[in-house]
Amino acid sequence: MEFTRPRGTRDFFPEEMEKRRWVEAKIRNTFENFGYGEILTPTFEHINLITAKSGEDIVEHLYTFVDRGKRKLVLRPELTAPVMRAYVNELQSQAKPVKLYYIANCFRYERPQSGRYREFWQAGIELIGSPGAEAEAEVIALAYTILKNLNLKDFTMHIGNIGLLRKFLKNLGITEQSNFLALIDKKEHDELEKQLKFYGVKAEDRKLFFKIISLKGNTRETVTRVRELFQDREILKEMDRFEETLNYIDNLGVDYSVNFGIARGLDYYTGMVFEIYAQKLGAEKQICGGGSYSLTETFGGKATPTCGFAIGFDRLILALDKDGVKAGSDNDHGVYVIPVSQEFIAYAMKITSDIREYKVCEMELKRRKLGKALSYASKKGFEYAVIVGEEITDSKISLKNLISKEQVEIDISQMKTALTTGHR
Amino acid sequence: MEFTRPRGTRDFFPEEMEKRRWVEAKIRNTFENFGYGEILTPTFEHINLITAKSGEDIVEHLYTFVDRGKRKLVLRPELTAPVMRAYVNELQSQAKPVKLYYIANCFRYERPQSGRYREFWQAGIELIGSPGAEAEAEVIALAYTILKNLNLKDFTMHIGNIGLLRKFLKNLGITEQSNFLALIDKKEHDELEKQLKFYGVKAEDRKLFFKIISLKGNTRETVTRVRELFQDREILKEMDRFEETLNYIDNLGVDYSVNFGIARGLDYYTGMVFEIYAQKLGAEKQICGGGSYSLTETFGGKATPTCGFAIGFDRLILALDKDGVKAGSDNDHGVYVIPVSQEFIAYAMKITSDIREYKVCEMELKRRKLGKALSYASKKGFEYAVIVGEEITDSKISLKNLISKEQVEIDISQMKTALTTGHR
Repeated sequence: MEFTRPRGTRDFFPEEMEKRRWVEAKIRNTFENFGYGEILTPTFEHINLITAKSGEDIVEHLYTFVDRGKRKLVLRPELTAPVMRAYVNELQSQAKPVKLYYIANCFRYERPQSGRYREFWQAGIELIGSPGAEAEAEVIALAYTILKNLNLKDFTMHIGNIGLLRKFLKNLGITEQSNFLALIDKKEHDELEKQLKFYGVKAEDRKLFFKIISLKGNTRETVTRVRELFQDREILKEMDRFEETLNYIDNLGVDYSVNFGIARGLDYYTGMVFEIYAQKLGAEKQICGGGSYSLTETFGGKATPTCGFAIGFDRLILALDKDGVKAGSDNDHGVYVIPVSQEFIAYAMKITSDIREYKVCEMELKRRKLGKALSYASKKGFEYAVIVGEEITDSKISLKNLISKEQVEIDISQMKTALTTGHR
Repeated sequence: MEFTRPRGTRDFFPEEMEKRRWVEAKIRNTFENFGYGEILTPTFEHINLITAKSGEDIVEHLYTFVDRGKRKLVLRPELTAPVMRAYVNELQSQAKPVKLYYIANCFRYERPQSGRYREFWQAGIELIGSPGAEAEAEVIALAYTILKNLNLKDFTMHIGNIGLLRKFLKNLGITEQSNFLALIDKKEHDELEKQLKFYGVKAEDRKLFFKIISLKGNTRETVTRVRELFQDREILKEMDRFEETLNYIDNLGVDYSVNFGIARGLDYYTGMVFEIYAQKLGAEKQICGGGSYSLTETFGGKATPTCGFAIGFDRLILALDKDGVKAGSDNDHGVYVIPVSQEFIAYAMKITSDIREYKVCEMELKRRKLGKALSYASKKGFEYAVIVGEEITDSKISLKNLISKEQVEIDISQMKTALTTGHR
């Protein structure tokens, strides 16, 4: 009988895990340096939490199930809704801002393809209760700093403003905006044109609309262009605030393009939004998305301005690979201890145990003969072999450098010094 | 509308997560020093994988569901079966031993109570392909070293031998042993007596049987007692091997009791088995269990001797709490940067960004007045406040030690030195 893993999922083996944990540690470290604390919510939630945030349409992409207590549950497809639920339930009374981060797995039932898995990881933050432009700027800078700290080269940040799109759509008499924002996000311009016509938007305004969502490029130029195109006071106010955010990140040296076509496709964003692309990933190039939103009231809490983002951890790993970034620690290849025969096993185990207090160390566990054990150790990348034989009765061992092949007999009392200050 | 988390699950907030990550890092570090590499399998598996290992009875305690492709899936209740599946699928041809560790979440549908959650974490290892006593000894020493490295005081290790029980049962004519091992594990001696009678075991042998499974205590004494009680060659051979394992761990200073009543309740154990108890946890006192077994053949692979254990991470955390172990890093309480008014925000952000390269740093994001911002920073446990005001135009900031309350105006070029070598 053959046992396989479920379609669309992965097994991660040690080499891959070492890389993933290294990237995770870099992200974690940057989150913490920015003053964020980790939160972890359950792997499954009540399904109404997810549909309250993302609508009923998401259900067909979810792993849903009914537990033995008849609860309708879902494997979390993302972390923002669970984190907001936990915030509303337990943290609302804390002094603001509340700064939370997560690095955790999520699940979507989708056709598996490169960069899309049924179980995937997200790393993100929520900055809750800071309404200012400097809060937005800090969130953008944090996403940017993470990628810089990881040495990712191939990425571009695009910053837009859903507040502008919302106010513009409102001016055109469109108050039910979700569908429009989704179409902008998916860049379905033909369908957008049809919808705008259906809502009776004039040809001139439709042209302006497509001009806005196609505006991209250098900060000042793009924002100035929007200012010129509109005389609307509300829109100009939105642009003032947007420029304040951009000024702060300019000052921090963040590299970005303004792109008013960024719409995120979800209903709860209110103002600044951003996405980061790693071009080499092709269709699945988006490695990060975020912005300013308001969700706490959806989950029964007090309306609280929030700004956050999520990084697609698996795509980030792919992007680092494509970019040639060597993710992983400088390996401590460690020490391999070999008893030359069974009678020296107990000695070898004690020596192994001692070395483990300061170095990665393994002992020969297959009772291979010395030559075979040495070649196994070399092949596995160990730096040193400690050979335990007859001379242990005089408190001596043989220390072999597996790279230079040099071998010396030393007193056991000198072993730690030799292994930790070793000359290769 | 109220949104709650599913029954039996938990939200972990930053203080708790810091503790859990600290314990996780200690465990991870010990695993890696022993030469184990991390493996991570999918959160859900095909249900037949779990029932192949643990039998059909486990199903009522599982979270099972059918995905949109009609696959019968299950949230993993433990990691040994998934790791063995992954090994059989992908690692069988590697040089032995294969040394794998995992630290991951599992799921069981059970009545929630102290130390029992519906989502819980396990940290464990599998040492695959080393049949020797020294391999068993290393596995025991690893579990022991982890608890020692965590400074846990209140724990006792009990080591038994299912090989002995199996051979004894076989001598009594009992070849279908699962039920007996389960009853020994649950200490249901009345039912055991009934079953032994049902199988026609003589009164004298029944007495011997209960004597064996009640034998506990000092190594030599207990093992010697078993030797005296049996003349059976197979059993004496099993005891020779068992004593070899015990000799190795004696040599490493591992503290334990021999306990022939340890039966683990699962069918695949073959020889040495062990459990670790933290007495203060009461009914849910078992924090670790493991032993030697053979499972690869169950999953379609070549039979391969394996030895492993799993630590109940959540119970371990409870045990550390009860034991008064302070789990958590020596906090870097960091620096709080306060712009005295809006015009200094951009300067403050830049300074914050610079400090983050060497220290945890947060900026005031609520535009509170200086006094309020300082008292917020003190309350949150920051060590220093950097105050950015008019004097920044002369490249100067005010540095306030929030513990000593001392405040000095310094040049920005001296800031890093002051913050990193600071005198409290």
